[in-house]
Amino acid sequence: MEKHYLMTPGPTPIPEEIIKTMARPIIHHRTPQYLDIVKKVNEDLKKVFKTSCNVLTFTASGTGAMEASVVNTLCQGDTAVVVRGGKFGERFAEICQAYGVKVVPVDIDWGTRPEPSVIEGALKRYPETKAVFMQLCETSTATVYDVKSIAGLMRERETILVVDAISGLGADEFEMDSWGVDVACGGSQKSLMLPPGLAFCAVSKKAWTMVRRSKLPKFYLDFEKYDQLVDKGDSPWTPSITLVIGLQRALSMITQEGVDNFIKRHKADAEFVRSFLKGLGLGIYSKFPSDAVTAAKVPHGVDGSELIRSLKAKGVTFAGGQSQLKGKIIRIAHMGGITREDLKAALGKLKEALKEQKAKV
Amino acid sequence: MEKHYLMTPGPTPIPEEIIKTMARPIIHHRTPQYLDIVKKVNEDLKKVFKTSCNVLTFTASGTGAMEASVVNTLCQGDTAVVVRGGKFGERFAEICQAYGVKVVPVDIDWGTRPEPSVIEGALKRYPETKAVFMQLCETSTATVYDVKSIAGLMRERETILVVDAISGLGADEFEMDSWGVDVACGGSQKSLMLPPGLAFCAVSKKAWTMVRRSKLPKFYLDFEKYDQLVDKGDSPWTPSITLVIGLQRALSMITQEGVDNFIKRHKADAEFVRSFLKGLGLGIYSKFPSDAVTAAKVPHGVDGSELIRSLKAKGVTFAGGQSQLKGKIIRIAHMGGITREDLKAALGKLKEALKEQKAKV
Repeated sequence: MEKHYLMTPGPTPIPEEIIKTMARPIIHHRTPQYLDIVKKVNEDLKKVFKTSCNVLTFTASGTGAMEASVVNTLCQGDTAVVVRGGKFGERFAEICQAYGVKVVPVDIDWGTRPEPSVIEGALKRYPETKAVFMQLCETSTATVYDVKSIAGLMRERETILVVDAISGLGADEFEMDSWGVDVACGGSQKSLMLPPGLAFCAVSKKAWTMVRRSKLPKFYLDFEKYDQLVDKGDSPWTPSITLVIGLQRALSMITQEGVDNFIKRHKADAEFVRSFLKGLGLGIYSKFPSDAVTAAKVPHGVDGSELIRSLKAKGVTFAGGQSQLKGKIIRIAHMGGITREDLKAALGKLKEALKEQKAKV
Repeated sequence: MEKHYLMTPGPTPIPEEIIKTMARPIIHHRTPQYLDIVKKVNEDLKKVFKTSCNVLTFTASGTGAMEASVVNTLCQGDTAVVVRGGKFGERFAEICQAYGVKVVPVDIDWGTRPEPSVIEGALKRYPETKAVFMQLCETSTATVYDVKSIAGLMRERETILVVDAISGLGADEFEMDSWGVDVACGGSQKSLMLPPGLAFCAVSKKAWTMVRRSKLPKFYLDFEKYDQLVDKGDSPWTPSITLVIGLQRALSMITQEGVDNFIKRHKADAEFVRSFLKGLGLGIYSKFPSDAVTAAKVPHGVDGSELIRSLKAKGVTFAGGQSQLKGKIIRIAHMGGITREDLKAALGKLKEALKEQKAKV
């Protein structure tokens, strides 16, 4: 059978050695063997988030971690500044609204990033703002945001910065502690090379002061319930054992390569993809392209959805655009288990498909 | 290597064919191939729950489904009757309290079950009760509750019945529609033969009227978000793809055997275990033993925790007692992928271990 290339920004392909690790007979989660695995996972996750704070692991989709970052830090009626530059920024706003948090939206054109001055302006107009919510990589537009500069604005304020790093973590540069990020969300099915099903929140000291005053109701996603067990490798509810065991393997691979080298490899792959696309005459959609995923503009005269379908028939799955970008972009992930060879093969097929669609390449 | 026998009431061993199915290269969740798998899963789950209502699948531990059953049906200040006969009954009460729901506890001795007359008494004293929460199998005491009779009390009331069937589903007799249960929770790591990581809520028509008036905040676990996509095989957030694909295999095995035969096999295995234990001179802890898991009393003079440790060394993992039952019982699961041969082998080791501990067997 011909290899199928899964090039979507989640799920990403799972390396064979991780699949094999997860295929071993399952073990119980309250055994020393499993607790030791989790302790190792927790230490390695800190290396990926670049933090000395605890990273809490939830059995959930990434959206679960996004919700956890809201319900654990805020109270009803609190004000939150929310960057809306794509589908995932909108999701943070929807979660806040579902819990009665007042949203000050910072709406930016899709494919651009929020300028620190704009965030600063919002914070000055709404000095009561308790938290700023933004993405590291806004997956829907393949755009990396300037988290570092925006985190700098929080240093002299009580406001916390919550970053959805779900698709960016491990691919785009991210330094939780040195930049001063307070809550960072992650997910398993991106650069961490696992199936979906695990989500993470790394929580800073400053965020913990907010957690203690937070009055929004929570139970399953309650940070404190996880945090009091995390050092023992334990969790309040039965965890997703096989995924956590796979995660240990994935994190071993990443820390063996070195987190910085891992990030550099993503950067190099992203540059390779962007340069290949430019060579094909395709425009890059985002003004600030992420190193996790690239959005190529579909050329005039080509039907984007049809292009994705024809690539599927050739054994390559790319993601299309969402909402307002439907049919207008194709998104090519270059993270986690996607190798340079995979990228070359998949982009070769893209070239073929474009030719067939008689685009001017 | 000698086989290790995992005999805990979750996780349970995963049959080889399910492991192999989950070890295939991952596919994207918004492809016709995956959506078709989910549609099949949804139909088969209805057969297991014995319902014509939709069964919603969450990426979560069982506790996530328990929380979903609270936050989707109630409002702050609503009254709920909660049966507390073990650790999981207590959990329902804690979830209700976390969301500002008034709890009318029905506390029963551990190892017994709530009598319908007691529930009826509570409903008469608190006619404003919006929901009754109870277990099918209270895993911590290995006790099956009389859901059928208690469901009968709801027929002429507006009150709904929410049943945590997480450990009982597929093992203990359960008929959602014909008994009149309104919300039934399930989990993947019990008789469904999967790793933990998926949770389910089946939701009746009567429950949907409560869902529409419910004002408790929710987002990740919002029934309506799932229900509007369920017929397409889609889900609001990236699902736990590999577990869902494994679930299709598991449900195919169960429906091929026939759900009723599957339940009967659990009953026969449970009877075999209870009779073997009696033969060893061990008492059965519960007055109403479940067909999913059996709790044996640890004989006088034997240290329960030490017994579990010595069995572990012999390659058998049993669960001990929780909270007030710590050291006093051992719990032996007989569900899902645990075969009669596994039970014979594991109970043989128990006999050996008891002899070594010089118990009078």
